[in-house]
Amino acid sequence: MGEGEEVGNKQILLRDFVSGFPKESDMALNRSNTIQLKVPEGSKAVLVKNLYLSCDPYMRSRMRKPDAPSYIPPFTPASVITGYGVAKVLDSGHPDFKEGDLIWGMTGWEEYSLITATEALFKIHYTDVPLSYYTGVLGMPGMTAYAGFYEICSPKKGEYVFVSAASGAVGQLVGQFAKLLGCYVVGSAGTNEKVDLLKNKFGFDEAFNYKDETNLDVALKRYFPEGIDIYFENVGGKMLDAVLLNMRLHGRIAVCGMISQYNLEQPEGLHNLFSIIAKRIRMEGFLVVDYYHLYPKFLDLVRQYIKGGKIVYVEDKAEGLESGPAALIGLFTGKNVGKQVVVVAHE
Amino acid sequence: MGEGEEVGNKQILLRDFVSGFPKESDMALNRSNTIQLKVPEGSKAVLVKNLYLSCDPYMRSRMRKPDAPSYIPPFTPASVITGYGVAKVLDSGHPDFKEGDLIWGMTGWEEYSLITATEALFKIHYTDVPLSYYTGVLGMPGMTAYAGFYEICSPKKGEYVFVSAASGAVGQLVGQFAKLLGCYVVGSAGTNEKVDLLKNKFGFDEAFNYKDETNLDVALKRYFPEGIDIYFENVGGKMLDAVLLNMRLHGRIAVCGMISQYNLEQPEGLHNLFSIIAKRIRMEGFLVVDYYHLYPKFLDLVRQYIKGGKIVYVEDKAEGLESGPAALIGLFTGKNVGKQVVVVAHE
Repeated sequence: MGEGEEVGNKQILLRDFVSGFPKESDMALNRSNTIQLKVPEGSKAVLVKNLYLSCDPYMRSRMRKPDAPSYIPPFTPASVITGYGVAKVLDSGHPDFKEGDLIWGMTGWEEYSLITATEALFKIHYTDVPLSYYTGVLGMPGMTAYAGFYEICSPKKGEYVFVSAASGAVGQLVGQFAKLLGCYVVGSAGTNEKVDLLKNKFGFDEAFNYKDETNLDVALKRYFPEGIDIYFENVGGKMLDAVLLNMRLHGRIAVCGMISQYNLEQPEGLHNLFSIIAKRIRMEGFLVVDYYHLYPKFLDLVRQYIKGGKIVYVEDKAEGLESGPAALIGLFTGKNVGKQVVVVAHE
Repeated sequence: MGEGEEVGNKQILLRDFVSGFPKESDMALNRSNTIQLKVPEGSKAVLVKNLYLSCDPYMRSRMRKPDAPSYIPPFTPASVITGYGVAKVLDSGHPDFKEGDLIWGMTGWEEYSLITATEALFKIHYTDVPLSYYTGVLGMPGMTAYAGFYEICSPKKGEYVFVSAASGAVGQLVGQFAKLLGCYVVGSAGTNEKVDLLKNKFGFDEAFNYKDETNLDVALKRYFPEGIDIYFENVGGKMLDAVLLNMRLHGRIAVCGMISQYNLEQPEGLHNLFSIIAKRIRMEGFLVVDYYHLYPKFLDLVRQYIKGGKIVYVEDKAEGLESGPAALIGLFTGKNVGKQVVVVAHE
């Protein structure tokens, strides 16, 4: 294609704000959009071809009317969805980027994107791992696991660690970090297939299917007869309430997400907060954006772990931009096994 | 009276475990008990005459069947209630204590106590303040305010601080510490008299009567249009839920108590925990027992503040051991104005 050529640019749009459980039909494929494959004269933007898009639970909060507390602005109805992705630079008006560069960061759910917020892009220097890893284990979810576990949980060798949504992009890595440190690690997930993965692929000491448990308190007491030192919270609701009853003295809860609550009109009530006093628990919410200064350190560590076979990583790839809405919604029913990625183009 | 004389020793007993709201009749005055005013031969105990007894909210949890999470053992039904107090040593089998010493620490709700757990006693060296202060501003509640504010809240000059149950033994001191540091401080309380006290005696910037507010979220937005950096939590329930909606980024919540929940069969549900992520809040429970190593530092600081008139302190004194049950129960209806003390003897 010639420079500056105008091409078709399929997009996934959010039709309107969503309350309750999101459906595929809340999103739409726009086939009629076009884009010029050149950065406008004088602009410092970059023009990229999107390769991999990341499906992340936090995106649910951007589909919601901006009435609930959130930390990022909502999507714009009838506009393209945005999210983390891996892309290749086709043209650049910014001195830090040039044609052919690979980047990861905030892009659009479309074939090509003109990105003006270049400060949120990371250049990819290492291509000895699959590029899609930069939507997961080497990208935002990986950094989330790293910051949450090492910076918030204050982990020590031998401690008892519980991870919910443990086979997801963040959870699988948290569990492996904890194992590498010498902790006892249990994960919960929502299918037996994921439980198998946790025990047999990711090396968790134990794992259970929370949907098979009628009483989460009893389940946790079975796996943690001496209680939990560290809880890495991804789900919220009833699981958090049960965990609070099972924390050990001076336990720590890193609150990363509460995916079980995102589609409820009114979040479930938590009743066991008094444990925070009785057990002297520290419960701390965090966002990965506060920790990106640690990215180079994280990248060095995790690349070595991956190359040394000390960390394994499972992705669930949906092929084609058109598969994006179903893939995103699948997160909330737990359809994905491992990190959910949408493959827009292979290069 | 002669050494080793046997004397009458009135006691307050807990009749049986209490569920729901405690009543005076859950306790009983035992007039028939006697005690020998001498430590048994070979014992390392101390025999004390109790002067002041402290009424503290945590005592409610010791009246409950040991089914809920707690950090201290329950009282023994049909036995004397124990708690913090100030007492005078009449006889000692322990080398660290001698007749005439004044102490504060765990004693019994009775005229005289034989204390075997002497490791939990503090010797009183300074009598240039009222002795009853060692049940409050210079004792456990004071240390609680000090540890919670300085060690848990990570306070900085100019921050916005909210204290609930602010006229209580702990709250009044937290607010004054925060003012001395240069914070903006608002307190809540349950009567207009207490609100006046907060504003006109303790120097809070603002105060409000939570019982006059139909919507605590609206009330907090009125006093904290820019949000709350530090919440010193004494009450739990609806107030905590409203505070969560009004925290600022990187806010801190020191969870000291949840008095609104102690008499409920089932604690109220909290719905706004997601704010912990959105606002990156650190919420941390603590118990004063973990911080007693700081007591000498605390004592130096607060004695100087008191002598310099920089900290004021309000007590609510009930006269006579017989008044103990009503005084203790009054805590849960907010009857007390300031720190509730029971005067057993003036010396």
